[in-house]
Amino acid sequence: MTAVLEPTLAPLPLALPAVERRAVMPSGFTAAATAVGIKASRGPDLAIVAADGSASRAGVPVAAIFTMNALPAAPVRLSRQHLAATLPSGGGGYGWTRGIVATSGSANAATGDSGDVDQAQIASLFAEALGAKPEETLALSTGVIGTRLPVRAVGDGIADLVPRLSASDEALAAVAEAICTTDSRIKVATVSVAVESSGDEAATSFRVSGLAKGVGMIHPHMATMLSVVLTDARAEPALLHDILRSSATRTWNQLSVDGDSSTNDTVFLLASGAAGGQSMQQGSQAARALAAGVEAVARDLARQQAADGEGATTLITCQVSGARTDIAARAVARAVVSSSLVKTAVHGRDPNWGRIAAAAGNAGVEIDPNRLRIAIAATLVFDGSAGGPLAFDRDAARAAMDAPELLVRLDLGSGAGMGEAFGCDLTEAYVVENSEYTT
Amino acid sequence: MTAVLEPTLAPLPLALPAVERRAVMPSGFTAAATAVGIKASRGPDLAIVAADGSASRAGVPVAAIFTMNALPAAPVRLSRQHLAATLPSGGGGYGWTRGIVATSGSANAATGDSGDVDQAQIASLFAEALGAKPEETLALSTGVIGTRLPVRAVGDGIADLVPRLSASDEALAAVAEAICTTDSRIKVATVSVAVESSGDEAATSFRVSGLAKGVGMIHPHMATMLSVVLTDARAEPALLHDILRSSATRTWNQLSVDGDSSTNDTVFLLASGAAGGQSMQQGSQAARALAAGVEAVARDLARQQAADGEGATTLITCQVSGARTDIAARAVARAVVSSSLVKTAVHGRDPNWGRIAAAAGNAGVEIDPNRLRIAIAATLVFDGSAGGPLAFDRDAARAAMDAPELLVRLDLGSGAGMGEAFGCDLTEAYVVENSEYTT
Repeated sequence: MTAVLEPTLAPLPLALPAVERRAVMPSGFTAAATAVGIKASRGPDLAIVAADGSASRAGVPVAAIFTMNALPAAPVRLSRQHLAATLPSGGGGYGWTRGIVATSGSANAATGDSGDVDQAQIASLFAEALGAKPEETLALSTGVIGTRLPVRAVGDGIADLVPRLSASDEALAAVAEAICTTDSRIKVATVSVAVESSGDEAATSFRVSGLAKGVGMIHPHMATMLSVVLTDARAEPALLHDILRSSATRTWNQLSVDGDSSTNDTVFLLASGAAGGQSMQQGSQAARALAAGVEAVARDLARQQAADGEGATTLITCQVSGARTDIAARAVARAVVSSSLVKTAVHGRDPNWGRIAAAAGNAGVEIDPNRLRIAIAATLVFDGSAGGPLAFDRDAARAAMDAPELLVRLDLGSGAGMGEAFGCDLTEAYVVENSEYTT
Repeated sequence: MTAVLEPTLAPLPLALPAVERRAVMPSGFTAAATAVGIKASRGPDLAIVAADGSASRAGVPVAAIFTMNALPAAPVRLSRQHLAATLPSGGGGYGWTRGIVATSGSANAATGDSGDVDQAQIASLFAEALGAKPEETLALSTGVIGTRLPVRAVGDGIADLVPRLSASDEALAAVAEAICTTDSRIKVATVSVAVESSGDEAATSFRVSGLAKGVGMIHPHMATMLSVVLTDARAEPALLHDILRSSATRTWNQLSVDGDSSTNDTVFLLASGAAGGQSMQQGSQAARALAAGVEAVARDLARQQAADGEGATTLITCQVSGARTDIAARAVARAVVSSSLVKTAVHGRDPNWGRIAAAAGNAGVEIDPNRLRIAIAATLVFDGSAGGPLAFDRDAARAAMDAPELLVRLDLGSGAGMGEAFGCDLTEAYVVENSEYTT
């Protein structure tokens, strides 16, 4: 045991634009939401996001990420098919769309062929109301697995909503509210990006706004939960897809609430092009700025989702540096935030670095204990190069942990790879909430 | 929705000998345990298992499985080295031993070089007391990570215990007790196996007895927690290793309490040969009977560990049939018992088959929803070939779930692969227990 002489580990440097937690509607989109009685609570449970009238007949470019669960829900299957119908070369991962219909309260998962028929009927009604083809629409749903959607009520709701579609910020906030289930608050994030002219690229500016819902059945290695990200930037579907996948790798796929991936997880990124200018070229300064904007929004939404994890009181961010690769760093970070023992220790405000070390050791990544350093909040607690455990002020460490956000830093001392992951503490309230849901 | 007409899914047929939950010492071994003050509770925390005086100078054959955690504890590193020293061809996974020293209350993990020095000193003291070489001894430890073992107290305890080594059943039970930490009860299992003569194989009979400790930081894809399995059968180290690994694949590696793999997990299988006869040949009837005996003991210990999971009230066994391969069936079964949402639903006695289906879908195994069938206890709740969800009596299903053991059955309808996994419900008590441990 040695005294604490070393400085603590600094947070990772991240090159992302600043995010505001407001619902700001990018140009080129409209939205509306209402309650049609899917949720027993009678809260809002039906929402629409649509390209406004200025969109081309086929709609706007869209990219998607879907759950990797082997039993995807009906809306996921339908959205994949529709994307593939609008752009076969996109393989169902990107294409064109006129709008998204979102329902909450029923997942329309594990509902067999009937669920597919229901979802197709909703798509027809939605398309008819928009004056579009069914394949130009997409769908999202969240809620209880194994229950059917009330098709007639949803259809009536759509007929009511379409004439009321609005480009206001309030309409976007209403969508964020309507897709919530056990979320305690809405999740929205927005960035405004200006790109100066350089070389043969003209100056451009655009906005990226996202909304998302958490808060259970969230775990890495699936697409994610539900999220819609809108931008008025001008970009082709394939570029949007590259940007979305790369952002998700560092954000949503690094998010774990409870280790379960849902049957319904979906993220859509839509680009209206209303900001004007040329369509962005892969590798251009504008495309890189859009990628940073999307990642900033995705990261902030992921952190909001982690903070609002079922029963959670503390957002845990684990940042790892000194790994051989970024992939290894992300794996270690994920293992730490996914560990039930780390999660309960954080809940107990217990600076139990042994559990952090053990969780890191389960990541499938080689770790040299003589180079490993661990800091909890601002306290360096373990330094392998100084014999391992450090003496530290436990009361001060406990006090620092008693906050809505906790940073856990690890440095592996073996390379330049870095990454982060987001999770939350595991509390009695999580257990109570999930022991009492449904039935 | 259709009425329940189909019979429910029958439990998997398993060809394993019957197990008794008693501590019965196999011939050829001795043991003793005491308290030396490692545990704050002053409970027993030091135990020895040794080959009796009839063993050869090098001891008895032993096979081991160790944690796959990247930060293995000092006793794990020492045991690997000692096995490799007694049988270099075994690569540290099997060899010869005179005895095992087990400590509880401190894991001796993440203790740096000092921890290795401590463990080596304990091995020297133990070897001296046995009249053996240090490399002819093995070590196990469990408890808090990052704390050092009190070497002098452990040494004094060893000097006290070795003259009191006993071949009694009570001595074996005392070891089972001394390795416990948060376990609420000891875990022991024994089978007696008789093999009739056949062809050129003589008749033989032997006993397999195991002891183990749970109950947190338990998850598939590591070796397991702590267990020692003893048999008086006569078998070489390499055969023992094959048998142990193959048994663990279907038992301990299918056990999940909380998704965390510890730094200290270790299983030892020792064979005294005191039952007499020829050394068993790979592929012989006797070797197959020994494998079945070891697997029966391992399976029973794994079930005891799951049932005594921290805070648990219900043992969950998930059995999967109809998979393309046994590996796929085991993956699906593991995914179901590892799901926090399934675990909380079981705690709430909620026959929420949607969570079971979603968890199965996360196993990385292709599943045809139109062939999937799910039964909870004796109730078939989902039949993909009959449209999916079945109507069933929820009150009766809830009542059936209110039991210390719950069987969840899935049939994938796609092949002959089968497998099972063992877990427990997730309760408020787990969270409370792990929020308050240490510090």
